[in-house]
Amino acid sequence: MKQKEISVAEFFEKNKHILGYSNPAKALITCVKEAVDNSLDACEEAGILPDILVKIFRVGKNYRIIVEDNGPGIEKEEIPKVFGKLLYGSRFHTIKQSRGQQGIGISSAVLYAQISTGKPAKILSKVEGEDAYEIELFINTKKNEPEIVSEKKVEWYAPHGTRIELEIVGSYVKEKKQSVYEYLRQTSIVNPHARITLIEPDGTIHEFKRISNVPPQPPKEIKPHPHGIELGTLLNMLKYTKHRDLKSFLKKEFVRVGDRIAEEIVQKAGLSGNADPKKLSRDEAEKLLEAFKLTSLLPPPTDCLSPIGEDLIKRSLLEEFKPEFVFATTRKPKVYSGHPFLIEVGIAYGGEIREEKVKILRFANKIPLLYQQGGCALTKAVESVNWKSYGISQNKGELPQAPMVILIHLASTNVPYTSESKEAVASIPEIVEELRLALQEAGRKLREYLERKSRIERKKKKESELFKIIPLLAEKVSEVLEREVPDYEKVVARIMGSVYISRSVFAEDGRNFAVLKIANYSKYRRKFKVYEMSSGDIKAEKKVGNSAIFEVELMPEEEVEIKYEFTGKLINKKPLVEGLSEDEIIGGEVVSF
Amino acid sequence: MKQKEISVAEFFEKNKHILGYSNPAKALITCVKEAVDNSLDACEEAGILPDILVKIFRVGKNYRIIVEDNGPGIEKEEIPKVFGKLLYGSRFHTIKQSRGQQGIGISSAVLYAQISTGKPAKILSKVEGEDAYEIELFINTKKNEPEIVSEKKVEWYAPHGTRIELEIVGSYVKEKKQSVYEYLRQTSIVNPHARITLIEPDGTIHEFKRISNVPPQPPKEIKPHPHGIELGTLLNMLKYTKHRDLKSFLKKEFVRVGDRIAEEIVQKAGLSGNADPKKLSRDEAEKLLEAFKLTSLLPPPTDCLSPIGEDLIKRSLLEEFKPEFVFATTRKPKVYSGHPFLIEVGIAYGGEIREEKVKILRFANKIPLLYQQGGCALTKAVESVNWKSYGISQNKGELPQAPMVILIHLASTNVPYTSESKEAVASIPEIVEELRLALQEAGRKLREYLERKSRIERKKKKESELFKIIPLLAEKVSEVLEREVPDYEKVVARIMGSVYISRSVFAEDGRNFAVLKIANYSKYRRKFKVYEMSSGDIKAEKKVGNSAIFEVELMPEEEVEIKYEFTGKLINKKPLVEGLSEDEIIGGEVVSF
Repeated sequence: MKQKEISVAEFFEKNKHILGYSNPAKALITCVKEAVDNSLDACEEAGILPDILVKIFRVGKNYRIIVEDNGPGIEKEEIPKVFGKLLYGSRFHTIKQSRGQQGIGISSAVLYAQISTGKPAKILSKVEGEDAYEIELFINTKKNEPEIVSEKKVEWYAPHGTRIELEIVGSYVKEKKQSVYEYLRQTSIVNPHARITLIEPDGTIHEFKRISNVPPQPPKEIKPHPHGIELGTLLNMLKYTKHRDLKSFLKKEFVRVGDRIAEEIVQKAGLSGNADPKKLSRDEAEKLLEAFKLTSLLPPPTDCLSPIGEDLIKRSLLEEFKPEFVFATTRKPKVYSGHPFLIEVGIAYGGEIREEKVKILRFANKIPLLYQQGGCALTKAVESVNWKSYGISQNKGELPQAPMVILIHLASTNVPYTSESKEAVASIPEIVEELRLALQEAGRKLREYLERKSRIERKKKKESELFKIIPLLAEKVSEVLEREVPDYEKVVARIMGSVYISRSVFAEDGRNFAVLKIANYSKYRRKFKVYEMSSGDIKAEKKVGNSAIFEVELMPEEEVEIKYEFTGKLINKKPLVEGLSEDEIIGGEVVSF
Repeated sequence: MKQKEISVAEFFEKNKHILGYSNPAKALITCVKEAVDNSLDACEEAGILPDILVKIFRVGKNYRIIVEDNGPGIEKEEIPKVFGKLLYGSRFHTIKQSRGQQGIGISSAVLYAQISTGKPAKILSKVEGEDAYEIELFINTKKNEPEIVSEKKVEWYAPHGTRIELEIVGSYVKEKKQSVYEYLRQTSIVNPHARITLIEPDGTIHEFKRISNVPPQPPKEIKPHPHGIELGTLLNMLKYTKHRDLKSFLKKEFVRVGDRIAEEIVQKAGLSGNADPKKLSRDEAEKLLEAFKLTSLLPPPTDCLSPIGEDLIKRSLLEEFKPEFVFATTRKPKVYSGHPFLIEVGIAYGGEIREEKVKILRFANKIPLLYQQGGCALTKAVESVNWKSYGISQNKGELPQAPMVILIHLASTNVPYTSESKEAVASIPEIVEELRLALQEAGRKLREYLERKSRIERKKKKESELFKIIPLLAEKVSEVLEREVPDYEKVVARIMGSVYISRSVFAEDGRNFAVLKIANYSKYRRKFKVYEMSSGDIKAEKKVGNSAIFEVELMPEEEVEIKYEFTGKLINKKPLVEGLSEDEIIGGEVVSF
């Protein structure tokens, strides 16, 4: 039996499905994805607003893919290795959030092209102020090294950017759940600063517009955080450090370790701050690790991570799905195995979402994950939450059943994908736990909303029943007692425990007046605003345009009268009220601005 | 931005979850799995009946894992690279079925041990007739090379074998769906020639016994099959071939290509058989590939694959689950991307299986797959079959709901795992299609069984109703006509279209005789055996022990009388019948031997 070394390129040549090239349709999407992810990363690092063109067309039985960006370009010398060598790149050895992190992605697309059609990749790149070069290359898989086929200086219209052309055996799928279109659409949602144009093989052009003109703050590179770091990693750091004493080692090679903390760690570990880090034994390193765990530290700084943000998540969900309820949360960064990460969750419920099956949108470092939903820890976390306790129906251990969309974003300096194809997240306990907390937070908000909704519905139902009976009752009673029919809205308000507003209008000396009688029949202090608008003018202390604003604060059982003069005609049948919900007011129209 | 090369060991050090080390419980199982898979492979190749000991015990907060086998042992010089270098091994470059195929597995366990506890792996190995050596080693992750800590000659009790000791941060789970126990149990089911002993941390000993003393035929190494091979692979083969003319290249470097076929391929490609393969252009290679597709070839030889076998699958399912119905199929080998594979499916239904949720047992090259069921193409294929058409309830696109176990085995010279952790199979169209065909075959058999079952139930119900009415009817009629009460079993048999047997016993001259009257009231020719047993002796032409066998063949409406002499007493109330189902016979007891 001959034992032999295997080059990483040979390995992936044989196992291309691990990289996401398991069938022609998926292979085409994966090629586009790797190129676009690279473009977005390059632009983000250079602070450029990305302008990306994706063009796909048929060449005989094959497909040709062109992805062109306005990024900073790549130095001519670096092009061959960046595109023609697996496990080569700038992002693997740095601790900061990026889409690419493995040094595999784009060269895997080059590898797939050459495996499937035998055609070289064509790369054109221009760095500002330098010449543009076009290089055609293969990967020599036995050596995992680039093999240049041709190389020439070319003219290019743009000041800087990169363009890659690949010919592959593929299959183009139009506008499905798993398609180039869907991948770009979802990418554009969480990257509103990017403009992406897609030209499909049939000539259809889709433009995903730039919504924000502010490029996101590029994430900063940081040092490892002591919490969760593994012994093996620590031993390696100790072995290769340039620092001569343990204290400097701790202060210089870790984040969140200052002088005081370094001293505390050294003491807890029972070591000397002057010790040579290179000479620490395995047992001493283990003590150091224990001391890390016993020392409270600030969480890793947020600026190595680039969240989507609660506002953007809510806005996207509202625009996309038109739900009746939306909530989003961006959690504080945490650490797993020394890698900072943060979780964001958005939830949209009801409204125009009709399907009684939850839809999950997964993102990792702002890349949409289209495949392997079932095999992803993010999905598993959703299944593991007890949604019944939030009023959502669910078979235990399965996805909840409700007209609901859950958006999940995992941002990390090292997203733990289950494989190099970056389709699903591995089941890391710290991440699952943090996601569960975020989902529970969202669940509680949803429950509050649903409870309020059903409370309002119940109350409104009761109210409408009361409104049917009480007038009849009142009339009868008035008849018997020979009195005037009382204000039954007030009676209902009393019974329902609502705030009650009545407006009466009268004229005096040719001037028009209105009186608002407002009573708080609830058990709570109520603070709200009442708006009145007229076709003419209203005399009031506080006004916006021609609408008067009255700020009201009432203790339980307290009443107030507001009198104002106006010209013209009052516009609304009932006064407008802001700051109370529909079940809390009778006689006013609830609005929110 | 500094571009830099990444060593494959560094890559996996940072991404150990890709190798299956995403949490302590899973990490422990993965370590055991990698070691045991290696042992089984080594024994299989050497034709040794495996005897494997797995011992797991606590050392402080860590776990120590020992896996010891009676395999052929590893040459001292090879030990460091086999255990201390990723992407190194004997099985990657050969085309034959094996558990290990990547040259990553066991070194990944060594890597995990050193990352999590900083402890080296200890390997002891002895090749027959040579000295035993014990080597302690780390992996230098920056270089992806072994780093030997110690090395010594030792005494060992066994003539040959290998033993690995790892200390890891882990968590031991007892007898769950995902546990060392379950992994070994399932491994033992499909490897009945292996004896595996597990000593758990609490001291419990499980022995998985050797059931078969015949080691499986070790799979043979083959050359690539022309069908499904990719252009890139073909170009590489052309580039590195030692053969000087195209025809020899085709005959010598591919399986199933003889002289005639080689000639046919060359002609179809419009090329010359004498052409230098090294000088073929990309376009010519493409024509060659087209010619491959247009040429019918025998499927790849089966001896590069080692199926479990229909018998063993059925036997295992029967023993394990005690179902009322079992079926198994081993399909013919097919090819994907030039890699031969075959699919086996076993199905067990009802009986002691009570849970109304299908259970899936997945195996790849005889390794049980415990994780990522949801993300596995084997599961997806089960979901994609329309089980309703086989009488099984199913929500579209989900797993069927029935008291059913489905065993799936994919055997291949290159199992397309979704990641290096070997937990799930990628969605390769050829494999999914072949599995669907196997499942459909099983589904049809299951439907036949279920239909027959319900037909029998319906018929039996009708029969039992007839048996209630007819005697009353017969008595009344007999009373009126003043005749003897007729044999109403015969009447029912006539109505039901069954075979009818009646036995009458009488004595003559102090000797006992029995007469069997057998009539075929069905519309079909019926062939079956009737067994009669007595406490004494039966005089008959054909006998097994003291039971007489009468072979009967009757055309529709045909009748026969069988008379025999016996001593003692007849044992069975009704004659035993073999070869008819319960709904086809009245007056006899259905048996099958």
